[in-house]
Amino acid sequence: MGLIHKILHSRSADDGNFFMRLKGIIGFAPKDLEIYKKAFTHRSINKKDAKGNPVNYERLEFLGDAMLGSIISNHLFNQVPSGDEGYLTKMRSKVVSREHLNELGKDLGLIHLVDSKIPKEHFGENIHGNVFEALVGAIFLDRGYMFCERFVQKKVIKPYVDIEKLEGKILSYKSLLIEWAQKEKKTFLFEVYDDSGNELIKHFAVKLFIDGKIAAKARATSKKKAEERAAKRAYFKLQNKIDAQK
Amino acid sequence: MGLIHKILHSRSADDGNFFMRLKGIIGFAPKDLEIYKKAFTHRSINKKDAKGNPVNYERLEFLGDAMLGSIISNHLFNQVPSGDEGYLTKMRSKVVSREHLNELGKDLGLIHLVDSKIPKEHFGENIHGNVFEALVGAIFLDRGYMFCERFVQKKVIKPYVDIEKLEGKILSYKSLLIEWAQKEKKTFLFEVYDDSGNELIKHFAVKLFIDGKIAAKARATSKKKAEERAAKRAYFKLQNKIDAQK
Repeated sequence: MGLIHKILHSRSADDGNFFMRLKGIIGFAPKDLEIYKKAFTHRSINKKDAKGNPVNYERLEFLGDAMLGSIISNHLFNQVPSGDEGYLTKMRSKVVSREHLNELGKDLGLIHLVDSKIPKEHFGENIHGNVFEALVGAIFLDRGYMFCERFVQKKVIKPYVDIEKLEGKILSYKSLLIEWAQKEKKTFLFEVYDDSGNELIKHFAVKLFIDGKIAAKARATSKKKAEERAAKRAYFKLQNKIDAQK
Repeated sequence: MGLIHKILHSRSADDGNFFMRLKGIIGFAPKDLEIYKKAFTHRSINKKDAKGNPVNYERLEFLGDAMLGSIISNHLFNQVPSGDEGYLTKMRSKVVSREHLNELGKDLGLIHLVDSKIPKEHFGENIHGNVFEALVGAIFLDRGYMFCERFVQKKVIKPYVDIEKLEGKILSYKSLLIEWAQKEKKTFLFEVYDDSGNELIKHFAVKLFIDGKIAAKARATSKKKAEERAAKRAYFKLQNKIDAQK
Protein backbone atom coordinates (compact mmCIF):
# COMPACT_ATOMS: atom_id res chain seq x y z
CA MET A 1 0.00 0.00 0.00
CA GLY A 2 1.55 3.34 -1.04
CA LEU A 3 1.81 6.21 1.44
CA ILE A 4 -0.88 8.35 -0.20
CA HIS A 5 -3.24 5.42 -0.34
CA LYS A 6 -2.56 4.73 3.32
CA ILE A 7 -3.26 8.34 4.32
CA LEU A 8 -6.49 8.43 2.33
CA HIS A 9 -7.53 5.17 3.81
CA SER A 10 -6.86 6.16 7.40
CA ARG A 11 -8.57 9.49 6.87
CA SER A 12 -11.77 7.99 5.61
CA ALA A 13 -11.71 5.45 8.45
CA ASP A 14 -11.45 8.40 10.87
CA ASP A 15 -14.38 10.06 9.12
CA GLY A 16 -16.39 6.89 9.42
CA ASN A 17 -15.63 6.69 13.10
CA PHE A 18 -16.53 10.35 13.66
CA PHE A 19 -19.72 9.91 11.65
CA MET A 20 -20.87 6.95 13.72
CA ARG A 21 -20.06 8.53 17.08
CA LEU A 22 -21.71 11.79 16.04
CA LYS A 23 -24.78 9.97 14.78
CA GLY A 24 -25.00 8.15 18.10
CA ILE A 25 -24.97 11.44 19.98
CA ILE A 26 -27.25 13.55 17.79
CA GLY A 27 -29.60 10.72 16.86
CA PHE A 28 -29.66 11.28 13.10
CA ALA A 29 -27.29 11.06 10.15
CA PRO A 30 -25.30 14.24 9.52
CA LYS A 31 -25.22 15.38 5.89
CA ASP A 32 -22.21 17.66 5.63
CA LEU A 33 -19.60 16.15 7.93
CA GLU A 34 -17.19 19.09 7.50
CA ILE A 35 -19.54 21.43 9.35
CA TYR A 36 -19.66 19.08 12.33
CA LYS A 37 -15.91 18.58 12.29
CA LYS A 38 -15.57 22.33 12.64
CA ALA A 39 -17.98 22.23 15.60
CA PHE A 40 -15.52 19.94 17.39
CA THR A 41 -12.27 21.64 16.39
CA HIS A 42 -10.61 23.59 19.19
CA ARG A 43 -8.60 26.71 18.35
CA SER A 44 -5.42 25.06 19.69
CA ILE A 45 -5.38 22.92 16.51
CA ASN A 46 -4.67 26.18 14.67
CA LYS A 47 -6.46 25.05 11.53
CA LYS A 48 -7.06 27.54 8.70
CA ASP A 49 -9.12 27.42 5.52
CA ALA A 50 -7.82 28.24 2.01
CA LYS A 51 -8.40 31.96 2.65
CA GLY A 52 -6.53 31.93 5.94
CA ASN A 53 -9.67 32.11 8.14
CA PRO A 54 -9.36 30.11 11.37
CA VAL A 55 -11.32 26.85 11.37
CA ASN A 56 -12.64 26.10 14.86
CA TYR A 57 -15.92 25.99 16.73
CA GLU A 58 -16.04 29.57 17.96
CA ARG A 59 -18.10 31.06 15.13
CA LEU A 60 -20.53 28.13 15.26
CA GLU A 61 -20.92 28.79 18.97
CA PHE A 62 -22.18 32.28 18.12
CA LEU A 63 -24.68 30.86 15.65
CA GLY A 64 -25.83 28.03 17.91
CA ASP A 65 -26.33 30.41 20.82
CA ALA A 66 -28.67 32.54 18.70
CA MET A 67 -30.58 29.49 17.43
CA LEU A 68 -30.99 28.10 20.93
CA GLY A 69 -32.25 31.49 22.05
CA SER A 70 -34.96 31.62 19.41
CA ILE A 71 -36.04 27.99 19.80
CA ILE A 72 -36.25 28.24 23.59
CA SER A 73 -38.08 31.57 23.29
CA ASN A 74 -40.66 30.02 21.01
CA HIS A 75 -41.11 27.08 23.35
CA LEU A 76 -41.60 29.29 26.42
CA PHE A 77 -43.91 31.62 24.49
CA ASN A 78 -46.19 28.70 23.63
CA GLN A 79 -45.85 26.88 26.91
CA VAL A 80 -46.59 29.76 29.27
CA PRO A 81 -49.40 31.89 27.82
CA SER A 82 -49.68 33.80 31.08
CA GLY A 83 -46.01 34.78 31.24
CA ASP A 84 -45.18 38.38 30.43
CA GLU A 85 -42.06 39.62 28.62
CA GLY A 86 -40.05 39.87 31.84
CA TYR A 87 -41.00 36.38 32.96
CA LEU A 88 -40.17 34.87 29.57
CA THR A 89 -36.79 36.62 29.47
CA LYS A 90 -35.92 35.36 32.95
CA MET A 91 -36.95 31.78 32.15
CA ARG A 92 -34.97 31.81 28.91
CA SER A 93 -31.83 32.97 30.66
CA LYS A 94 -32.22 30.11 33.13
CA VAL A 95 -32.52 27.53 30.35
CA VAL A 96 -29.56 28.81 28.38
CA SER A 97 -27.42 29.56 31.42
CA ARG A 98 -23.74 28.63 31.19
CA GLU A 99 -24.20 26.05 33.93
CA HIS A 100 -27.12 24.44 32.16
CA LEU A 101 -25.40 24.31 28.77
CA ASN A 102 -22.30 22.79 30.35
CA GLU A 103 -24.45 20.09 31.90
CA LEU A 104 -26.09 19.37 28.54
CA GLY A 105 -22.78 19.12 26.70
CA LYS A 106 -21.35 16.91 29.42
CA ASP A 107 -24.32 14.55 29.46
CA LEU A 108 -24.07 14.15 25.68
CA GLY A 109 -20.36 13.34 26.09
CA LEU A 110 -19.42 15.88 23.42
CA ILE A 111 -15.90 16.35 24.77
CA HIS A 112 -14.92 12.92 23.40
CA LEU A 113 -15.31 14.25 19.87
CA VAL A 114 -13.27 17.42 20.43
CA ASP A 115 -10.08 17.69 18.44
CA SER A 116 -7.56 19.70 20.45
CA LYS A 117 -3.84 20.06 21.17
CA ILE A 118 -4.65 20.64 24.84
CA PRO A 119 -5.27 17.52 26.93
CA LYS A 120 -9.00 17.25 27.61
CA GLU A 121 -8.55 17.15 31.37
CA HIS A 122 -6.99 20.63 31.20
CA PHE A 123 -10.18 22.20 29.89
CA GLY A 124 -12.49 24.04 32.24
CA GLU A 125 -16.21 23.38 32.55
CA ASN A 126 -17.21 25.80 29.80
CA ILE A 127 -15.94 23.69 26.94
CA HIS A 128 -18.95 21.39 27.36
CA GLY A 129 -21.44 24.20 26.85
CA ASN A 130 -19.42 25.89 24.13
CA VAL A 131 -19.23 22.71 22.06
CA PHE A 132 -22.91 22.09 22.66
CA GLU A 133 -23.74 25.54 21.24
CA ALA A 134 -21.43 24.89 18.29
CA LEU A 135 -23.18 21.60 17.62
CA VAL A 136 -26.57 23.34 17.56
CA GLY A 137 -25.12 25.86 15.07
CA ALA A 138 -23.77 23.01 12.93
CA ILE A 139 -27.13 21.22 12.88
CA PHE A 140 -28.83 24.45 11.80
CA LEU A 141 -26.37 24.91 8.92
CA ASP A 142 -26.51 21.27 7.92
CA ARG A 143 -30.25 20.64 8.17
CA GLY A 144 -32.08 23.94 8.66
CA TYR A 145 -34.24 25.49 11.35
CA MET A 146 -36.97 22.85 11.66
CA PHE A 147 -34.49 20.06 12.15
CA CYS A 148 -32.48 22.10 14.60
CA GLU A 149 -35.68 22.84 16.51
CA ARG A 150 -36.53 19.14 16.69
CA PHE A 151 -33.04 18.37 18.01
CA VAL A 152 -33.34 21.06 20.70
CA GLN A 153 -36.82 19.81 21.58
CA LYS A 154 -35.55 16.29 22.02
CA LYS A 155 -32.19 16.92 23.67
CA VAL A 156 -32.76 20.11 25.63
CA ILE A 157 -36.40 20.89 26.18
CA LYS A 158 -37.83 17.43 26.83
CA PRO A 159 -35.23 16.23 29.33
CA TYR A 160 -34.26 19.56 30.94
CA VAL A 161 -36.81 22.32 30.54
CA ASP A 162 -39.27 22.09 33.32
CA ILE A 163 -41.23 25.27 33.80
CA GLU A 164 -42.31 24.57 37.38
CA LYS A 165 -38.80 23.72 38.43
CA LEU A 166 -37.36 26.74 36.63
CA GLU A 167 -39.90 28.88 38.41
CA GLY A 168 -38.66 27.49 41.68
CA LYS A 169 -42.09 26.05 42.49
CA ILE A 170 -40.68 22.56 42.56
CA LEU A 171 -37.25 22.41 44.11
CA SER A 172 -36.83 18.69 43.91
CA TYR A 173 -38.88 15.97 42.31
CA LYS A 174 -37.16 13.48 44.57
CA SER A 175 -38.54 15.07 47.73
CA LEU A 176 -41.94 15.57 46.11
CA LEU A 177 -42.11 11.86 45.27
CA ILE A 178 -40.86 10.73 48.66
CA GLU A 179 -43.54 12.82 50.32
CA TRP A 180 -46.20 11.35 48.07
CA ALA A 181 -44.95 7.77 48.63
CA GLN A 182 -45.08 8.25 52.40
CA LYS A 183 -48.64 9.51 52.29
CA GLU A 184 -49.65 6.67 50.02
CA LYS A 185 -47.71 4.17 52.13
CA LYS A 186 -45.66 2.98 49.18
CA THR A 187 -42.05 1.87 49.33
CA PHE A 188 -39.57 4.08 47.53
CA LEU A 189 -36.09 2.93 46.54
CA PHE A 190 -33.25 4.10 44.29
CA GLU A 191 -30.85 1.53 42.93
CA VAL A 192 -27.67 3.26 41.73
CA TYR A 193 -24.95 1.65 39.68
CA ASP A 194 -21.84 2.95 37.97
CA ASP A 195 -22.43 3.08 34.23
CA SER A 196 -19.41 4.75 32.68
CA GLY A 197 -18.69 2.17 30.01
CA ASN A 198 -15.73 3.30 27.94
CA GLU A 199 -16.51 6.93 28.46
CA LEU A 200 -14.03 9.40 29.88
CA ILE A 201 -16.60 11.01 32.11
CA LYS A 202 -18.12 8.93 34.87
CA HIS A 203 -21.83 8.23 34.53
CA PHE A 204 -24.33 6.97 37.05
CA ALA A 205 -27.45 5.07 36.23
CA VAL A 206 -30.35 4.75 38.61
CA LYS A 207 -33.50 2.70 38.75
CA LEU A 208 -36.32 4.03 40.86
CA PHE A 209 -38.54 1.38 42.41
CA ILE A 210 -41.94 2.29 43.80
CA ASP A 211 -43.62 -0.56 45.61
CA GLY A 212 -40.98 -2.89 44.24
CA LYS A 213 -41.70 -2.08 40.58
CA ILE A 214 -39.47 -0.01 38.32
CA ALA A 215 -41.12 3.42 38.03
CA ALA A 216 -38.35 5.11 36.03
CA LYS A 217 -34.72 4.90 34.94
CA ALA A 218 -32.21 7.67 34.34
CA ARG A 219 -28.55 8.28 33.70
CA ALA A 220 -26.40 11.35 34.45
CA THR A 221 -22.94 12.53 35.42
CA SER A 222 -23.69 12.58 39.13
CA LYS A 223 -25.67 10.30 41.42
CA LYS A 224 -27.76 13.23 42.62
CA LYS A 225 -28.65 14.32 39.09
CA ALA A 226 -29.51 10.79 37.99
CA GLU A 227 -31.82 10.34 40.98
CA GLU A 228 -33.50 13.68 40.39
CA ARG A 229 -33.99 12.88 36.73
CA ALA A 230 -35.50 9.49 37.47
CA ALA A 231 -37.76 11.08 40.09
CA LYS A 232 -38.89 13.65 37.55
CA ARG A 233 -39.71 10.95 35.02
CA ALA A 234 -41.65 9.00 37.59
CA TYR A 235 -43.42 12.20 38.67
CA PHE A 236 -44.72 12.86 35.17
CA LYS A 237 -45.83 9.26 34.80
CA LEU A 238 -47.66 9.43 38.11
CA GLN A 239 -48.78 13.04 37.84
CA ASN A 240 -52.47 12.35 37.55
CA LYS A 241 -52.42 10.25 40.69
CA ILE A 242 -50.39 12.82 42.63
CA ASP A 243 -52.53 15.75 41.53
CA ALA A 244 -55.68 13.87 42.51
CA GLN A 245 -54.31 13.54 46.03
CA LYS A 246 -53.79 17.29 46.53
CA MET B 1 -80.22 47.03 9.78
CA GLY B 2 -80.29 45.54 13.29
CA LEU B 3 -77.68 46.57 15.86
CA ILE B 4 -75.91 43.19 15.91
CA HIS B 5 -75.76 43.13 12.16
CA LYS B 6 -74.36 46.63 12.17
CA ILE B 7 -71.65 45.71 14.70
CA LEU B 8 -70.68 42.57 12.80
CA HIS B 9 -70.62 44.53 9.61
CA SER B 10 -68.45 47.33 10.93
CA ARG B 11 -66.12 44.85 12.58
CA SER B 12 -65.46 42.93 9.41
CA ALA B 13 -64.97 46.18 7.52
CA ASP B 14 -62.36 47.12 10.13
CA ASP B 15 -60.71 43.74 9.65
CA GLY B 16 -60.66 44.25 5.92
CA ASN B 17 -59.08 47.64 6.35
CA PHE B 18 -56.46 46.28 8.79
CA PHE B 19 -55.76 43.37 6.45
CA MET B 20 -55.12 45.63 3.48
CA ARG B 21 -52.95 48.09 5.37
CA LEU B 22 -50.96 45.26 6.96
CA LYS B 23 -50.52 43.53 3.62
CA GLY B 24 -49.25 46.79 2.15
CA ILE B 25 -46.63 47.06 4.88
CA ILE B 26 -45.46 43.46 5.13
CA GLY B 27 -45.75 42.71 1.43
CA PHE B 28 -47.73 39.46 1.71
CA ALA B 29 -51.15 38.25 2.80
CA PRO B 30 -51.37 37.46 6.52
CA LYS B 31 -53.07 34.15 7.34
CA ASP B 32 -54.15 34.45 10.96
CA LEU B 33 -55.19 38.06 11.39
CA GLU B 34 -55.68 37.72 15.16
CA ILE B 35 -51.94 37.24 15.72
CA TYR B 36 -51.17 40.46 13.89
CA LYS B 37 -53.89 42.34 15.70
CA LYS B 38 -52.19 41.37 18.93
CA ALA B 39 -48.88 42.66 17.55
CA PHE B 40 -50.48 46.09 17.23
CA THR B 41 -52.44 46.15 20.49
CA HIS B 42 -50.96 48.41 23.16
CA ARG B 43 -51.36 47.47 26.81
CA SER B 44 -53.40 50.64 27.43
CA ILE B 45 -56.30 48.92 25.62
CA ASN B 46 -56.38 46.53 28.59
CA LYS B 47 -57.59 43.61 26.49
CA LYS B 48 -57.73 40.13 28.06
CA ASP B 49 -58.31 36.68 26.62
CA ALA B 50 -60.86 34.14 27.91
CA LYS B 51 -58.40 32.99 30.58
CA GLY B 52 -57.68 36.51 31.78
CA ASN B 53 -54.24 36.75 30.14
CA PRO B 54 -53.43 40.24 28.83
CA VAL B 55 -53.65 40.57 25.05
CA ASN B 56 -51.06 43.04 23.80
CA TYR B 57 -47.83 43.08 21.80
CA GLU B 58 -45.37 42.66 24.67
CA ARG B 59 -45.01 38.88 24.52
CA LEU B 60 -44.69 38.97 20.74
CA GLU B 61 -41.93 41.53 21.18
CA PHE B 62 -39.99 38.94 23.19
CA LEU B 63 -40.48 36.34 20.47
CA GLY B 64 -39.67 38.69 17.61
CA ASP B 65 -36.51 39.91 19.33
CA ALA B 66 -35.25 36.31 19.56
CA MET B 67 -36.16 35.57 15.93
CA LEU B 68 -34.46 38.72 14.71
CA GLY B 69 -31.38 37.74 16.71
CA SER B 70 -31.11 34.33 15.11
CA ILE B 71 -31.85 35.53 11.57
CA ILE B 72 -29.34 38.38 11.77
CA SER B 73 -26.77 36.03 13.35
CA ASN B 74 -27.14 33.60 10.49
CA HIS B 75 -26.81 36.39 7.96
CA LEU B 76 -23.64 37.78 9.55
CA PHE B 77 -22.19 34.28 9.98
CA ASN B 78 -22.55 33.65 6.24
CA GLN B 79 -21.67 37.13 5.10
CA VAL B 80 -18.45 37.60 7.05
CA PRO B 81 -16.48 34.32 7.06
CA SER B 82 -13.47 36.10 8.52
CA GLY B 83 -15.33 37.56 11.51
CA ASP B 84 -14.71 35.89 14.86
CA GLU B 85 -17.27 35.43 17.62
CA GLY B 86 -16.55 38.84 19.15
CA TYR B 87 -16.87 40.61 15.83
CA LEU B 88 -20.15 38.85 15.01
CA THR B 89 -21.61 39.66 18.42
CA LYS B 90 -20.68 43.33 18.05
CA MET B 91 -22.14 43.56 14.55
CA ARG B 92 -25.36 41.88 15.61
CA SER B 93 -25.85 44.28 18.47
CA LYS B 94 -25.43 47.19 16.05
CA VAL B 95 -28.07 45.80 13.69
CA VAL B 96 -30.61 45.09 16.40
CA SER B 97 -29.87 48.24 18.40
CA ARG B 98 -32.84 50.07 19.84
CA GLU B 99 -32.11 53.05 17.60
CA HIS B 100 -31.98 50.90 14.50
CA LEU B 101 -35.19 49.02 15.29
CA ASN B 102 -36.98 52.29 15.99
CA GLU B 103 -35.88 53.58 12.59
CA LEU B 104 -37.13 50.40 10.91
CA GLY B 105 -40.52 50.53 12.61
CA LYS B 106 -40.86 54.21 11.81
CA ASP B 107 -39.98 53.78 8.15
CA LEU B 108 -42.58 51.04 7.81
CA GLY B 109 -45.15 53.36 9.40
CA LEU B 110 -46.19 50.68 11.90
CA ILE B 111 -47.48 53.20 14.41
CA HIS B 112 -50.51 53.87 12.19
CA LEU B 113 -51.77 50.36 12.89
CA VAL B 114 -51.31 50.53 16.67
CA ASP B 115 -54.47 50.30 18.72
CA SER B 116 -54.01 52.30 21.91
CA LYS B 117 -55.84 54.46 24.43
CA ILE B 118 -52.86 56.79 24.57
CA PRO B 119 -52.64 59.37 21.78
CA LYS B 120 -49.89 58.30 19.36
CA GLU B 121 -48.02 61.57 19.67
CA HIS B 122 -47.53 60.84 23.39
CA PHE B 123 -45.49 57.73 22.72
CA GLY B 124 -41.73 57.84 22.89
CA GLU B 125 -39.40 56.63 20.16
CA ASN B 126 -39.28 53.04 21.39
CA ILE B 127 -42.79 52.15 20.36
CA HIS B 128 -41.62 51.98 16.73
CA GLY B 129 -38.99 49.34 17.49
CA ASN B 130 -41.17 47.44 19.94
CA VAL B 131 -43.98 47.07 17.44
CA PHE B 132 -41.48 46.11 14.76
CA GLU B 133 -40.21 43.28 16.97
CA ALA B 134 -43.78 42.20 17.73
CA LEU B 135 -44.55 42.15 14.01
CA VAL B 136 -41.54 39.85 13.39
CA GLY B 137 -42.83 37.56 16.16
CA ALA B 138 -46.30 37.55 14.62
CA ILE B 139 -44.94 36.66 11.17
CA PHE B 140 -43.00 33.78 12.71
CA LEU B 141 -46.11 32.43 14.44
CA ASP B 142 -48.30 32.94 11.38
CA ARG B 143 -45.97 31.66 8.66
CA GLY B 144 -42.94 29.96 10.24
CA TYR B 145 -39.21 30.53 10.31
CA MET B 146 -38.43 30.52 6.59
CA PHE B 147 -41.07 33.10 5.84
CA CYS B 148 -39.98 35.22 8.77
CA GLU B 149 -36.41 35.02 7.53
CA ARG B 150 -37.45 36.17 4.06
CA PHE B 151 -39.30 39.13 5.57
CA VAL B 152 -36.28 40.13 7.65
CA GLN B 153 -34.01 39.69 4.62
CA LYS B 154 -36.22 41.97 2.54
CA LYS B 155 -37.17 44.61 5.10
CA VAL B 156 -34.16 44.71 7.41
CA ILE B 157 -31.07 43.18 5.88
CA LYS B 158 -31.32 44.33 2.29
CA PRO B 159 -32.12 48.00 2.95
CA TYR B 160 -30.27 48.48 6.24
CA VAL B 161 -27.54 45.95 6.94
CA ASP B 162 -24.39 47.14 5.38
CA ILE B 163 -21.33 45.43 6.79
CA GLU B 164 -18.85 48.08 5.70
CA LYS B 165 -20.91 50.85 7.17
CA LEU B 166 -21.52 48.92 10.40
CA GLU B 167 -17.80 48.36 10.67
CA GLY B 168 -17.32 52.09 10.40
CA LYS B 169 -15.25 51.74 7.25
CA ILE B 170 -17.76 53.80 5.32
CA LEU B 171 -19.16 56.65 7.35
CA SER B 172 -21.25 58.18 4.62
CA TYR B 173 -22.11 57.05 1.14
CA LYS B 174 -23.04 60.62 0.31
CA SER B 175 -19.52 61.90 0.92
CA LEU B 176 -18.02 58.88 -0.83
CA LEU B 177 -20.09 59.59 -3.92
CA ILE B 178 -19.43 63.33 -3.89
CA GLU B 179 -15.71 62.66 -3.76
CA TRP B 180 -15.96 60.23 -6.65
CA ALA B 181 -18.09 62.64 -8.72
CA GLN B 182 -15.57 65.43 -8.23
CA LYS B 183 -12.68 63.27 -9.39
CA GLU B 184 -14.69 62.09 -12.36
CA LYS B 185 -15.85 65.66 -13.06
CA LYS B 186 -19.50 64.65 -12.94
CA THR B 187 -22.30 66.84 -11.65
CA PHE B 188 -24.02 65.65 -8.46
CA LEU B 189 -27.44 66.85 -7.37
CA PHE B 190 -30.12 65.87 -4.83
CA GLU B 191 -33.69 66.84 -5.49
CA VAL B 192 -35.69 66.63 -2.28
CA TYR B 193 -39.45 66.83 -2.00
CA ASP B 194 -41.92 66.36 0.78
CA ASP B 195 -43.72 63.03 0.36
CA SER B 196 -45.87 62.52 3.43
CA GLY B 197 -49.11 61.70 1.67
CA ASN B 198 -51.76 60.95 4.25
CA GLU B 199 -49.27 59.56 6.72
CA LEU B 200 -48.93 60.88 10.23
CA ILE B 201 -45.14 60.86 10.07
CA LYS B 202 -43.46 63.21 7.65
CA HIS B 203 -41.55 61.51 4.84
CA PHE B 204 -38.99 62.92 2.46
CA ALA B 205 -38.28 61.59 -0.97
CA VAL B 206 -35.09 62.35 -2.86
CA LYS B 207 -33.87 61.86 -6.38
CA LEU B 208 -30.14 61.77 -6.90
CA PHE B 209 -28.97 63.04 -10.28
CA ILE B 210 -25.47 62.30 -11.53
CA ASP B 211 -24.60 64.11 -14.72
CA GLY B 212 -28.22 65.09 -15.05
CA LYS B 213 -29.53 61.51 -15.03
CA ILE B 214 -31.41 59.88 -12.15
CA ALA B 215 -28.93 57.55 -10.43
CA ALA B 216 -31.17 56.54 -7.51
CA LYS B 217 -34.32 57.39 -5.56
CA ALA B 218 -35.08 56.95 -1.87
CA ARG B 219 -37.59 57.83 0.80
CA ALA B 220 -37.13 58.20 4.57
CA THR B 221 -38.32 60.05 7.64
CA SER B 222 -35.57 62.68 7.42
CA LYS B 223 -33.95 64.52 4.54
CA LYS B 224 -30.51 63.38 5.68
CA LYS B 225 -31.51 59.71 5.82
CA ALA B 226 -33.23 59.83 2.44
CA GLU B 227 -30.14 61.40 0.85
CA GLU B 228 -27.84 58.83 2.45
CA ARG B 229 -30.07 55.98 1.34
CA ALA B 230 -30.19 57.26 -2.25
CA ALA B 231 -26.40 57.71 -2.18
CA LYS B 232 -25.98 54.13 -0.96
CA ARG B 233 -28.20 52.80 -3.73
CA ALA B 234 -26.29 54.77 -6.33
CA TYR B 235 -23.01 53.59 -4.81
CA PHE B 236 -23.94 49.93 -5.24
CA LYS B 237 -25.09 50.57 -8.80
CA LEU B 238 -21.84 52.36 -9.60
CA GLN B 239 -19.60 50.21 -7.42
CA ASN B 240 -17.66 48.60 -10.26
CA LYS B 241 -16.79 51.98 -11.68
CA ILE B 242 -15.78 53.40 -8.32
CA ASP B 243 -13.66 50.39 -7.37
CA ALA B 244 -11.90 50.52 -10.75
CA GLN B 245 -10.88 54.11 -10.02
CA LYS B 246 -9.15 53.25 -6.72
